[in-house]
Order: sequence, then C-alpha cells, then structure tokens
Amino acid sequence: MQTQSTNLRIKLPVFVFVSEVIIVALNAAFVTYDEHADARLQTNQTNPMHNAVYKDYPIFTDIQVMIFLGFGCLMAFFRLYGFGGMAFNFLTATFAIQWAILVQGYFQFCHNGKIHLGVINLINAEFACAVVLISSGAVLGKTSPLQLLVMALLEVPVFAVTEWLVLKYLKINDAGGSILIHIFACYFGLGVTFVLHRPGLNEGHAKENTSYQSDILSVMGTLFLWVFWPSFNSALTLKGDDQHRAILHTFIGISASTLTAFALSAMLNKNGKLTMADIQNVTLAGGVTVGASVDMMISPVGAYVLGVTGCTACMLGYRYLSPFLAQRCKIQNRTHIVHCRDMCHIDG
Amino acid sequence: MQTQSTNLRIKLPVFVFVSEVIIVALNAAFVTYDEHADARLQTNQTNPMHNAVYKDYPIFTDIQVMIFLGFGCLMAFFRLYGFGGMAFNFLTATFAIQWAILVQGYFQFCHNGKIHLGVINLINAEFACAVVLISSGAVLGKTSPLQLLVMALLEVPVFAVTEWLVLKYLKINDAGGSILIHIFACYFGLGVTFVLHRPGLNEGHAKENTSYQSDILSVMGTLFLWVFWPSFNSALTLKGDDQHRAILHTFIGISASTLTAFALSAMLNKNGKLTMADIQNVTLAGGVTVGASVDMMISPVGAYVLGVTGCTACMLGYRYLSPFLAQRCKIQNRTHIVHCRDMCHIDG
Amino acid sequence: MQTQSTNLRIKLPVFVFVSEVIIVALNAAFVTYDEHADARLQTNQTNPMHNAVYKDYPIFTDIQVMIFLGFGCLMAFFRLYGFGGMAFNFLTATFAIQWAILVQGYFQFCHNGKIHLGVINLINAEFACAVVLISSGAVLGKTSPLQLLVMALLEVPVFAVTEWLVLKYLKINDAGGSILIHIFACYFGLGVTFVLHRPGLNEGHAKENTSYQSDILSVMGTLFLWVFWPSFNSALTLKGDDQHRAILHTFIGISASTLTAFALSAMLNKNGKLTMADIQNVTLAGGVTVGASVDMMISPVGAYVLGVTGCTACMLGYRYLSPFLAQRCKIQNRTHIVHCRDMCHIDG
Repeated sequence: MQTQSTNLRIKLPVFVFVSEVIIVALNAAFVTYDEHADARLQTNQTNPMHNAVYKDYPIFTDIQVMIFLGFGCLMAFFRLYGFGGMAFNFLTATFAIQWAILVQGYFQFCHNGKIHLGVINLINAEFACAVVLISSGAVLGKTSPLQLLVMALLEVPVFAVTEWLVLKYLKINDAGGSILIHIFACYFGLGVTFVLHRPGLNEGHAKENTSYQSDILSVMGTLFLWVFWPSFNSALTLKGDDQHRAILHTFIGISASTLTAFALSAMLNKNGKLTMADIQNVTLAGGVTVGASVDMMISPVGAYVLGVTGCTACMLGYRYLSPFLAQRCKIQNRTHIVHCRDMCHIDG
Repeated sequence: MQTQSTNLRIKLPVFVFVSEVIIVALNAAFVTYDEHADARLQTNQTNPMHNAVYKDYPIFTDIQVMIFLGFGCLMAFFRLYGFGGMAFNFLTATFAIQWAILVQGYFQFCHNGKIHLGVINLINAEFACAVVLISSGAVLGKTSPLQLLVMALLEVPVFAVTEWLVLKYLKINDAGGSILIHIFACYFGLGVTFVLHRPGLNEGHAKENTSYQSDILSVMGTLFLWVFWPSFNSALTLKGDDQHRAILHTFIGISASTLTAFALSAMLNKNGKLTMADIQNVTLAGGVTVGASVDMMISPVGAYVLGVTGCTACMLGYRYLSPFLAQRCKIQNRTHIVHCRDMCHIDG
Repeated sequence: MQTQSTNLRIKLPVFVFVSEVIIVALNAAFVTYDEHADARLQTNQTNPMHNAVYKDYPIFTDIQVMIFLGFGCLMAFFRLYGFGGMAFNFLTATFAIQWAILVQGYFQFCHNGKIHLGVINLINAEFACAVVLISSGAVLGKTSPLQLLVMALLEVPVFAVTEWLVLKYLKINDAGGSILIHIFACYFGLGVTFVLHRPGLNEGHAKENTSYQSDILSVMGTLFLWVFWPSFNSALTLKGDDQHRAILHTFIGISASTLTAFALSAMLNKNGKLTMADIQNVTLAGGVTVGASVDMMISPVGAYVLGVTGCTACMLGYRYLSPFLAQRCKIQNRTHIVHCRDMCHIDG
C-alpha cells in the first residue's frame, strides 16, 4: 500500500515532468509548422479554402472520438476500475500522441532538420496511439498508470521504426493498418503480458469483475469505434475514389462482421444467449480484416466476404485458441476486448 | 424457457446465416461501384477533391451516430433490458441497412442491371433503417431479436416501394422525410404491436420497468438525436442554399419544440415536476414537423411556429389520445419514446 | 414544498411561454436569411458548393456536441441530480441560444433593419450559450430551472454588449474567447453565487453528493469537451492557415495541460491517488490558456508552454485560492468543475 502510494505520488509526477521537459526541449529545437499551417508560406495566390486542414480535420475529430471516448468507454469495463479505465486511457493516449508526433516526425516528416507539423501528423500520431491502446487492453487491470506510460514510451518508437521500414522498404499497401497496427499491437501486448505476469496475480483480483453498468458503457465504446471505423481506415488513403472505396468497404466489412458475430454468439452459447464479450470483441473484426486492401477495387461483395470470414476466424480464435494461449502466456481472459481482434490474425 | 433458448440458439443463427448467404449472392450478382467510387471511371481530368464522398460522408457519420448511439441509448431505457436494448438496436440496424442497400438499390439506383453503390446509398439506407427502428420502439421489450429482424425484413421492402411511388409518381417534397418516414413507421409499428399482442402480456412485465441509470442513458440518446437532427433533415436536399436553410429550420424548429416541451411537461404534471418521458419524446417533435418543408423559404419565424405547434400537438396527442389508442391497440405506454413523435401526426 | 411546486408548475411555463411569444414576434419582425441561405440571392453564377454552410456546419455540429453532451454530462455529476443536471442544461442551453441569436444579431449581424441569419450566427450564439453554462456551473445544485433561465436572460445581453464593445472598440484578438468568454463567465458566475447565497443553504444539501456512476458520466462530459475543443477555439478564426494553427495549438495546449493535470493531481493527493475533480477541471485549462493567441504564429512549443503553465496556475488557484474565495463568496466547492478553468485567470 505504502509502495503503491509512493509509486503514484512520486514516480508518476516525476516521470511526467521529466518527459514534459524533454518534449518541450525537442519541440523547441525541432518542430515547426508545415506549409499549410505556416503564415509565412502563404501568398496572395494561396486559396485558404484549399488548405489541407479542411480535408484532414473532419477525419481527425472522428479518430479523436474513437481514441478518447471509444477506447475510454471500452476500458471502463472493469467494475471497480471504471473511472480508472477511462482516466488511464485518457492519460496514456495523450502521452502516446505527444510522443508519437516527435518520433514519427523524426522518421517521416523531417526535412531540413525540422519536423513539419500539420493536422496530418496528428492523425499519424493517433494511429501510433491506437497501437499502444490496443496493447494496453491486454494488461489493463494489472498495471498502474505509470506502467502504461512506460509501455507507451517504449512501444511508440518500436512501432514508428517498423512503420517506417514497412512503408519505405517493403512498400506494402496497408491503408487501414490491419497488418501493421493490429498485428504489431497484438504481439507487443502479448509480450508485455508475459513480462508482467506474476504467479497468483490473477487469483481473486477484484478489479477484473465487471458490472451491468460498465457493460453498457463498454458497448457504447464499441459503438463509438464502430461508427467511426470508416474514418480510421480511410484516413491515410489517396483522396478521391480511393477514399470513397475505403469508406464503403469498411462499412460493408464491419456490418457483415457484426451480423456474423451476433449469430455465432447465440449459436456458441449453450443457452442461446448473446455474450457481452462477443459484441464488444468480434463485431469490430471486419474493420480489421478489410483494412489491408480497403482502398483497392475488391468489389462490394469482396468486402462482405472479408467481413464474414474475418469475424468467423476471430470468433473461433477467441473461443478455442486464446484460452490455450492464455494458459501459455498467462494473459487474462477479458483482455480480449480489443485485443482479440488482433488475436484472430494469429490463426486467421 | 427451453423454447426461447432453442429460438435464439438455432433460429437466430439460421436466419442470419441464410440471409447473409442471400445478401452475398445478390451483392455478387448485382452490386458495383458508382461513378465516384469506381477507379475505372476516373480520368486525368477528374479532380479527386470533387468526389461526392466529401459532401456525403460528414452527413453520413452524423446519421451513423444517430442510428447506433442515439437510438441505441434511447432503446436502453428498460432497466432489465439496457444491454439488450442497445445490442438489439445494433443488430437490427445493421441488418436493416444491408437489406435496404439492396432493396432501395433495386428501385432507385439500378441501371444497366446493376446497383451502383456510393456513400449516398448508405445515407438512403439509413433512412430506411430509421423507419424500422422507430417502428421497433413500439414493440421493444416484447420482442425477441429474431422478431425484430423479421420485422426489418418485411418493413424495408414495403417502405422502399412506398418511397419509390411517392418520389416517382406523387413527387411530394418531403426532404426531412416527415411524411414518409414518420407516418409510415408509426402505422407499421401500430400494426406490428397489434399482431404481437397477447392478452396478459403486459401484466407484471418486469422488463418494462426503467431505472434511474437507464433514464440518464436515454436522455443521452435523445441528445445524440437532437444534436444531429439538422444533418438528418438536410441529408437529401439540394446542395447550397437549400441545405443551408434545411439546417437552420431544423435547428430552430427543434429548439422551439424543446422549450415548449419543458413548459408543457411542468404544467401538465400535478407536482410541477418535469416528466422524463416528455423530455425524451416531445423535445424532438419539432424536427419532424419542420421536415416536410425544411428546404423551402418558410422564413425563420415559420420554422419557430412549426416547432411550437408540432410539439404542442404531439404532447397533447401523447397525453390524451395515445392512452385511448393504447387501450384500443394494446400498445404499451412507454413505446412512445420515439413513436409518439409520429403519433402526433394522427391528430395533428 | 407547495411553493416549489407552484414555482415550477406555474412560473416556469409562464416564463417560457411569454418569452416564446416575444421571440416569435421578434423573429417575425426582424429576422431574415443571410446571403448564403436566401434562395432569392442565388444566381446562375452561384456555385452551391461555395456556400458558407460547408465550412461552418461541421464546426457547428462539433460545438453542439460540446454544449449538449459535453456540458450535459458534466452537469450530471450530482448524484440526486443527474437527470436534472443534464435536462436543465438542455433547457438552459436551448433558451440561451435562441435568445443570443436575437441579441447578438442586433449588435453584430443587423443591417437594413434586419438580422441576417446563417449557420455562422448559430455558432456565435453557442459561444454566448457557453458563457451562460460556465457561469451556471457555479450555482448548479442550488438553483431551480427557472432561476437558470432568468440568469440566461440577463447574462446573454450583458455578454453581447461586452463582446461588441471589445470587438468594435478594443479590437482585441481573442479567437478562442479565453479573455472574453471565460473571464466574463467567471465573474458573472461568482456574482450570481453571491446573490443566491442564503446562510445554511450549504449544510446537509443532499443534492451535492456525487456517486460513482455520475463521476464516470462527468468524465465522459470532460472528454466530449476535450475532443472538440479545437473546433471551439478555431470556429471564428480566419479560414486557411489561421484555422489550421488554431487547431494545432489547441490540441497541443490541451494535451500538455492534461499530462500536467494528472501529474499534479497525483502529487498533491496525500495517497498519491488521482482526484476526480482534477481530471474534470484542470485537464481543460490548456484549451483556455492558448485561446487568446490561438491563431498566431506562437510556434508549437509556445502552445506547449502555455498549456503547462495555464494548467499549473489553474490547479494551484483551484487548490489554494478558491477555498479562500469560497469562504468569502460562499461558492460551493464542486462548482469548480467548469468554473475553475476560469478561476485560474484570477490568479494567473
């Protein structure tokens, strides 16, 4: 008790203040505006309505809602942890975005020795943030806020390097980030769970119970993610018909996945009841599965089939493979809330 | 108990899988991209920023929030049903949209033997979905998820045919869908309630109690609908000043209606207290009343008057007419949540 | 008890109906469409896609979510008041916006004897509404809905005159309204609290307790405000790079403020626990501090530093200055939810 109190009262503030000083110093030394935000680069010929902000900002707010309200509500699913889940998500996400702006900026947006900042960088940083939050779903209820911050500190650079390598050398099309974001987050989360595991940690852990109220809250979280998923998957595609297709495919894929999830959930429950965790987990699987090819001409029926098969693979993986993995890796069962969307890639 | 279990465990999955197979087959045979989503129809002269997706998608996300979060929270108002209300709304809405894309596509977007798909079709499908959800408000708490799906299966084609007839032959201006959507949903809902009624069904039905927490949730649902109603009413108007007026009128009408609803609620309650159900029901009435003429030059004061009178008619209809109807048609009292917005058209 | 019942049953409806009659009369006499909403002012040369509605409406919906859902959830933090908080916020906000359209219209948008109405007026009116809601945070739990309406009735014109004087004569740059909105709301709220104070009112006031559930709700409210704050701060800037910078600075400022708030909250709590009220209050301070210079070339690091210092000043003011003020001015402790964001300007 004493330790935990010291932990939070001293270590958390120290960690935050030290990193803030570093972030301020790096911002001062290396960060400037990009050409759409810099007043000095506008001329009489510049049409203010052609500023990139008008294309990027609506997508950005959608993703903001996903990150802070979607993940926030989803993380509130532990009864004695509801406030904590939402507040820790708030803290972790904010830190991860600030850190990702710098790290991704170094790898992707740096020229003439400066990181050039626009709303597009914020969108990229929220992708890195999503990676951290998906991984943290695997360890929530076991970790202090400080541990979550340390995890963000380590995971963001590893992700940024991977992203940069994939984009620069492999040139894989992965508009929705299915491959990069979700598989990366999955393995990182599994690794952290493995590291954090202490024998006996799972027994009688009151924080892992859920209640009726927090269940509703986490369905709301799922719905926030569901509703804005097309924005997430289309945020970084080419403008025009590519983005249009990305939106259509994501919607079709995620709604096919939702129908399938409800049917499988009723079928696999011995009383024919719908299982809460399935609604939270598996309805979103289609959004991940269509992600890699979301801007291509895969045809509407292609998106439908990807949604159905993705959801089925995820559901079966979650039901039959993940308890097996859980035993091996000691991950907790309810982690799967977000996590299992990724798990399905292991067996899918 | 056994029956219900079989119902869900076998019938629901069978219904969903059979309809998914049919939807996949129809998608494969008949659905292709529209000219804004098809890469083959873009030329060097196509400006990607002029793609229809940039005008349609923001409206689409607003309506998505209304359908999944707005109706979802509103449907969570039964205490022992909160999760169910939100989850069943999720399932029904997803199915109704998929089905409406095909059925409306056949009637409205079909040329050269193909349904041409773009975000605009999704918006249209969400209008049909809203019809189903409004009707389902009348029977919620009495119906299994399977019954809701069957209702969507039947209601979508009947609505699509009616819509097509009205648009093609009667050429009635009904931008906000006040006439078509709300009256249609009202009578369909009344009909289904009548069919589903079994004597004794209403007595001691625990599911119909509401709690403090679910009350707050359903005020949130009302607020989600309220905030985005201007998007709903202006989604299918002409672009430019028509859409601008539609937004202004809806906002004015719905806020006039809200003030009136609070005043009437306090006045008609014998202790001068605000009645929960009034806030949920009647604040939204103005959005429906201005709907039919929402894009015309009715002047701001016209929208104000429509909002006030619409709300008053709805409130009186709900208080004095609907208990009478309820006795006749055996509809439950709390159905009015959404439904009564429509009820007011009967006497208004 | 009798009195309160009479109050609501008679006085509230009378107030609302009388003001509605006046608002209808003023709308009929003085309000017309602006050039973007008036069909008669469109010519063959008018490109409907250049209508102002496409730039203003997305910002408007964001601010709508802040006003009705953000403040609504935030005001729900009293346990026995949850529904009331959200519903009274709904009523007060609706009235304040309608009233502000007329009053601000008279001062700012009036030419040829007519108020010219477009979505931009609604955005301005929501700024005035935000002022009223911030002030009402100081007296919530002590006031009847009628008192809140009277407060809005008085505060809107005083604010509109102040705003007009500042914009017209002082020509102070205050894009995010930090100076105008927040300082004004703060002093007005303090004044009203002082007026409303009756000895003994604070003792044993059951309505002031908060519960676990309403705490979560009010974190959600904070998150709604947090996510859309960049829209609020950039709503009235020049289009193009100015608006782009306003969005960047607000995001950077508010997230710096959030990290600082968490660290200070853990540090200042004797058990190292995070304090609920800090998350609700102080995370938002950065959005206010960057407000006045939000569209200038203050550089990203400038926004960061403003966020950190604003948050620190606000936190210290809230902790050490406001209990002192509370004793003097008899304001309740929990008022600070929104209020203290402003309080910090007193000592900052």
